[in-house]
Amino acid sequence: MYDGLKGFRDFYPGEMSARRAVTDTIEERVRRYGFREIGTPALERTQMYVDKSGEEIVDELYAFEDKGGRSVALTPELTPTVARMVVARQGALSRPIKWFSTRSFWRYEQVQQGRFREFYQTNVDIFGSSRPESDAEILAVAADLMTDLGLEVDEFEFRVSHRDILGGLLESLDSEVETADAIRAVDKREKIDRKAYYDLLVDAGLSRGEAERFDDVLGTDDLDDLVAFADTERVSAAVENLRAVLEAAADFGVREYCTVSLETARGLDYYTGVVFECFDTAGEVSRSVFGGGRYDDLIGGFGGQPTPAVGVGIGHETLSLLCQRAGVWPDETVETDYYVLTVGDTRDVAARIARDLRELGHVVESDLHGRGFGDQLSYADGIGAETVVIVGEQDLEDDCVTIKDMRSGEQTKVPLAEFPPAEGRPTYDEYAE
Amino acid sequence: MYDGLKGFRDFYPGEMSARRAVTDTIEERVRRYGFREIGTPALERTQMYVDKSGEEIVDELYAFEDKGGRSVALTPELTPTVARMVVARQGALSRPIKWFSTRSFWRYEQVQQGRFREFYQTNVDIFGSSRPESDAEILAVAADLMTDLGLEVDEFEFRVSHRDILGGLLESLDSEVETADAIRAVDKREKIDRKAYYDLLVDAGLSRGEAERFDDVLGTDDLDDLVAFADTERVSAAVENLRAVLEAAADFGVREYCTVSLETARGLDYYTGVVFECFDTAGEVSRSVFGGGRYDDLIGGFGGQPTPAVGVGIGHETLSLLCQRAGVWPDETVETDYYVLTVGDTRDVAARIARDLRELGHVVESDLHGRGFGDQLSYADGIGAETVVIVGEQDLEDDCVTIKDMRSGEQTKVPLAEFPPAEGRPTYDEYAE
Repeated sequence: MYDGLKGFRDFYPGEMSARRAVTDTIEERVRRYGFREIGTPALERTQMYVDKSGEEIVDELYAFEDKGGRSVALTPELTPTVARMVVARQGALSRPIKWFSTRSFWRYEQVQQGRFREFYQTNVDIFGSSRPESDAEILAVAADLMTDLGLEVDEFEFRVSHRDILGGLLESLDSEVETADAIRAVDKREKIDRKAYYDLLVDAGLSRGEAERFDDVLGTDDLDDLVAFADTERVSAAVENLRAVLEAAADFGVREYCTVSLETARGLDYYTGVVFECFDTAGEVSRSVFGGGRYDDLIGGFGGQPTPAVGVGIGHETLSLLCQRAGVWPDETVETDYYVLTVGDTRDVAARIARDLRELGHVVESDLHGRGFGDQLSYADGIGAETVVIVGEQDLEDDCVTIKDMRSGEQTKVPLAEFPPAEGRPTYDEYAE
Repeated sequence: MYDGLKGFRDFYPGEMSARRAVTDTIEERVRRYGFREIGTPALERTQMYVDKSGEEIVDELYAFEDKGGRSVALTPELTPTVARMVVARQGALSRPIKWFSTRSFWRYEQVQQGRFREFYQTNVDIFGSSRPESDAEILAVAADLMTDLGLEVDEFEFRVSHRDILGGLLESLDSEVETADAIRAVDKREKIDRKAYYDLLVDAGLSRGEAERFDDVLGTDDLDDLVAFADTERVSAAVENLRAVLEAAADFGVREYCTVSLETARGLDYYTGVVFECFDTAGEVSRSVFGGGRYDDLIGGFGGQPTPAVGVGIGHETLSLLCQRAGVWPDETVETDYYVLTVGDTRDVAARIARDLRELGHVVESDLHGRGFGDQLSYADGIGAETVVIVGEQDLEDDCVTIKDMRSGEQTKVPLAEFPPAEGRPTYDEYAE
């Protein structure tokens, strides 16, 4: 007997049906916004990730040398791949490029709640537009798919910020600050204690006094305070852009899901503009569910023409935890429209009925075991059959079949010539007197 | 600029939309037969494939040692994984177990037409039933999905055989024959010349005379000839089972797609009963599109209770070549129901209309570039928009929007309060006088 690998999961039909329903809901909403599905490989050259994220990333990758001597890695994220695809056809693609896909990714990480070594994401990206409408459309499609899943406005929020606000505030200080380090410190602000947080800021080059004043202004409700604190063109422009995105989000009907939160900085250095994280606000543990933002420099860094970009990567594992906590995770059950039950030598008629019902679009099973009446009925119950069509030798002599409602147990005879009808989903209720 | 790996493909939206349509058609049909979707990992322990297929398989695998020192491989096929899953829950799963999934697999192979290093398959399997109805249901679901794709009865055929017929015929000879080698020779019969084929049979232990008589009887139309040739219980039972499967296939409405062809032996040793291959019969090159069959020994070999099994693995690459050759491959284009065009400062109203149309289930795009009228219209044309809704400042003063049919170019004004209506898919035709 073999076992699967740690951090990799098998999904049996019940759980899979819930995951499929959630994925379908997400993708249906994304499609309505005009995002187009793409297909991407599971393996890429390791160098691509090293160039984007530094040599350390290799420790997290499933990286190896293939039989042709290439250094390859199981893709840990989608962004480098789509950037490569945009560059490869940059002349031929009309703008905006709006792409999505749902697939698995892999990282060699510690396994914990909501974190696996194989995990699933729906990535949604817009390339080619630097306008606030693009940032807002990413917020809008993300908010809409959350409500499509049944989540309410008080159950999640998008904490929205702008990468240049933090960068600009830090730049405006007298000290020489390592901006990336300081932003990483801000990203950890809620996860570590105050002292450790200040220490990180000081490590990044701030004086203790600057760290305190900087932290103060991060807490403001008034974006004008930021402009005044920094008194630089960079912060003014960032605040203006953030406001423009929020105004577009208001026009797009999703402003109510957005909270300005400057502490939201995203851990990844490649973001360049508005960034956001979706938080589970009603849960006992306020946790980040997924995030996204603007990354205008990546395509240029990949050797393409400078191309603005904004996107979101929706992690299905944390999202499913949120849905379960909120009570909107779909039932993990299988469903069946009809079970066609044979009694005696009636396989040919039963098969014809099953076939006709399938042509109408229904899910239909029939006997594959040569089982008796009771065992077939019990199997039909096990697969959640709504209706059982009993095709018995006796009934067929009267040119009838019996339609049984599995919930009530009631049944009635129906002329064989009338079943199934040319359309619809005939159940017991339609034939009962 | 980076390039992708050889044998791995990027699918841009046009091609992807066709692939998605084909996958949806396949899966819709499979679901109607009551097969339930499962989710499976991309990595497994290498040993599982070695135990099933021998040490040579490692040469074809993307196998490596992970950071925890485990020998792992990118899954080259689904069967060992589902066998592992059946064994892991064998007490809890009610029979028959009917599973399907569509996903990618990986083999380090020579890249050629219809063969890539990353390839896609829909696997459909039934576990727990040894009855001919199970074999026939696999044939039926496969035949139905082919016709759902638009393929006609004269464009493909299932060449059906039984593994024990070949084995039994060989066993009945006087010489000591290496059955697996001889069956592999038969599997190559149509791909190599006569002399090389006979040489392979002789290598497998047949005398030259036996090789000729054996080859003769393979060509017969009459299954009784086989029974007479071998005169063994094994061949009689295999012929009886094959006939029973074909009778069930007749009841299931798919007998016409099946041809008895004893040369069809499938290259894999683990098949134990009825085997079949789908051939493209109308193409210039008669080629195998996909195949399947019964493999009753695998689950027992994986440490589980003996569990009969039958299935099919539908390779999307060869299937797409068949569909393209037959002219039923879906258009590789993107489609859009509405483009909502803004003229002047009308973003709020345009966004509200776009939102309402999306709530009705439609695919809707709007401007993300701050473009003028002509550029927006040209973008709408590029994304295949059927209808353009023009939201202009002038029109809004009259409480109107303009509905433009993109095929004819005709347009008409509609009161803002009436657009969109509470349901349906309003086009120009509904408003034109």
